[in-house]
Amino acid sequence: MQASHERSARSVRVGLGDRAYEILIGSGLLARAGEEIAARLPGSRAAVVTDENVAAAHLQAFEASLGVAGIESVSIRLEPGERSKSFAALQETVDAILAARLERRDAVVALGGGVVGDLAGFAAGVVRRGMNLVQVPTSLLAQVDSSVGGKTGINTERGKNLVGVFYQPKLVLADTDALDTLPPREFRAGYAEVVKYGLIDRPHFFAWLEENWREVFSGGAARIEAIAECCRAKAEVVERDEHETGERALLNLGHTFGHALEAATGYDSARLVHGEAVAVGMVLAHRFSARMNLASPDDAGRVEAHLREVGLPTRPDQIPGGLPGAEKLLSYIAQDKKVSRGALTFILTHGIGRSFIARDVPASEVLAFLQQEVEAR
Amino acid sequence: MQASHERSARSVRVGLGDRAYEILIGSGLLARAGEEIAARLPGSRAAVVTDENVAAAHLQAFEASLGVAGIESVSIRLEPGERSKSFAALQETVDAILAARLERRDAVVALGGGVVGDLAGFAAGVVRRGMNLVQVPTSLLAQVDSSVGGKTGINTERGKNLVGVFYQPKLVLADTDALDTLPPREFRAGYAEVVKYGLIDRPHFFAWLEENWREVFSGGAARIEAIAECCRAKAEVVERDEHETGERALLNLGHTFGHALEAATGYDSARLVHGEAVAVGMVLAHRFSARMNLASPDDAGRVEAHLREVGLPTRPDQIPGGLPGAEKLLSYIAQDKKVSRGALTFILTHGIGRSFIARDVPASEVLAFLQQEVEAR
Repeated sequence: MQASHERSARSVRVGLGDRAYEILIGSGLLARAGEEIAARLPGSRAAVVTDENVAAAHLQAFEASLGVAGIESVSIRLEPGERSKSFAALQETVDAILAARLERRDAVVALGGGVVGDLAGFAAGVVRRGMNLVQVPTSLLAQVDSSVGGKTGINTERGKNLVGVFYQPKLVLADTDALDTLPPREFRAGYAEVVKYGLIDRPHFFAWLEENWREVFSGGAARIEAIAECCRAKAEVVERDEHETGERALLNLGHTFGHALEAATGYDSARLVHGEAVAVGMVLAHRFSARMNLASPDDAGRVEAHLREVGLPTRPDQIPGGLPGAEKLLSYIAQDKKVSRGALTFILTHGIGRSFIARDVPASEVLAFLQQEVEAR
Repeated sequence: MQASHERSARSVRVGLGDRAYEILIGSGLLARAGEEIAARLPGSRAAVVTDENVAAAHLQAFEASLGVAGIESVSIRLEPGERSKSFAALQETVDAILAARLERRDAVVALGGGVVGDLAGFAAGVVRRGMNLVQVPTSLLAQVDSSVGGKTGINTERGKNLVGVFYQPKLVLADTDALDTLPPREFRAGYAEVVKYGLIDRPHFFAWLEENWREVFSGGAARIEAIAECCRAKAEVVERDEHETGERALLNLGHTFGHALEAATGYDSARLVHGEAVAVGMVLAHRFSARMNLASPDDAGRVEAHLREVGLPTRPDQIPGGLPGAEKLLSYIAQDKKVSRGALTFILTHGIGRSFIARDVPASEVLAFLQQEVEAR
């Protein structure tokens, strides 16, 4: 049995000492989940946290897989969408786990996209001060980003992801077949994060994506290889800086501009989803780097051309419904007025695959750039 | 300045690698808190979490100390008592910290007893996935136990401390003068946890307490020495088993029986407070060990004599208001029916200072013992 999935799945190890864990990426992993979990957490019971959409597509088969492996389970279903990343949903999930009388040695299984993973991971991190956690990401975004590396959290009225814990899973199972049922727009949005790893420090991977993106979208070996490469990239960063005191911030490439755009659209997913915001944000980061004479404008053009080719937005004016002016966008970037008068931290680049953390970007330069990008066009 | 407090305070180091921290124990530390915090967390701002009672006694002087050291602060005041260990109080505290725009590099300061420390520590562990935390315990229980070692948490309807995180402080400041203003009953209750360290693995410390307990109660050098010894004992256990996968459970000596008694009294502090429950529980653990022929009955007698001498309850029939029968008490110990039919984990002892984790105690033996202790008397 071991041999059979060695053939069909890639394995990436996240080396964090006694908290090291394995990410399996491949086809058919949902059907094999019970077996993989039982092999690593023998004797454990499980609470499967999911949302109504994912439950409709995958829960029955998933629970069957657990049952065959002898894992007793209960399911906890969230409302789909970002609103489930709340204190109220956290408390409900925690209560449901406790009601099932699960112990620390039992497992919380996050079956779903980023919202499910963030909330279930947070719950697993706080029930009895930490239970076993298994991430089973079913969206491309979750497979390449949020299920790996231990960031969990919820939103508050004061902002997104302001409350949470760093809490590493014991296992990540990324079934690449699960992506076949995603809406195309959601798959494309997740693909922006795939491109991000190339832009940070993997220029050859970016070039490979330029050649092979169609196969990544259609499924099969190229998709598995792309996701595995993203997981390797993220694992390396997390191993060196688990708690984001330094270079882990590189993973925010495109996110500072992107978050401002998300805030400006009121986080209205009909207008803009996270991955689309990251796509526009990455183009802006490259264009801003070119404006600051840090990188060639040709690189910004190449990034934009690839993202446009796959169907992602690349410019603020492609976001439906109109945007506020540059001053307002800057205020979303620099929420603290003291910061907005001074220097900002951005992920900038010297070119494709050569991103770096710039800690002293003048707010005035950002404002002038935003005026050019948003107002002058 | 460094020299002056080297003279008046003991320092205990908790060696947890890059999360190591210092516990200072001594006289006058509240007045020096700003200076000590600024030396370790330069440039940080602070949110001081406290309760109304502690605020009345200490907050003004504490804030003045922060101010002198250049630390800007806000205060967050909880209702005194265990009810503040709730999801609602956690959310309010988190919101107040975020409203003050504190960042990860700023500090949450827990100024108070165990409830304040547990709640503020949990909040510090989850705001922005972990801010700096400083514990300033003002009760004996908090100084020798709850402020050291990183356990934080809240209660739910399903039980106490079922939700929380392991989160270590950057500094613990235990001002032994603060204990002068405690109600005598609360000091005595905290003293039960002092005795516990002697009973676990420090027989000489227990003998020293038998000789010197009056000075510990009255203040001065013996009190400082006793608290420092407890902190050393706890630090050693936490260093070896931070997340309680093994021997840290030894710190639960007296707590399994004690928790059952607390539950049986409905956590009514007029009848029984935690430290009193631990006192009775430690006597029961020694008597049960004697009954199981693990230890001499003389040791149980010596433990009981010392606790009785300082004014602590030592037997269930000293708890006012009556207790349920043995079957009911056992059900509080073994909440899961499957466990109650089988084996239980207890901290038992081979004699004073020779405690051990017993993982296979027959529930039937516990029941027979409780019948003897509660019903036959």
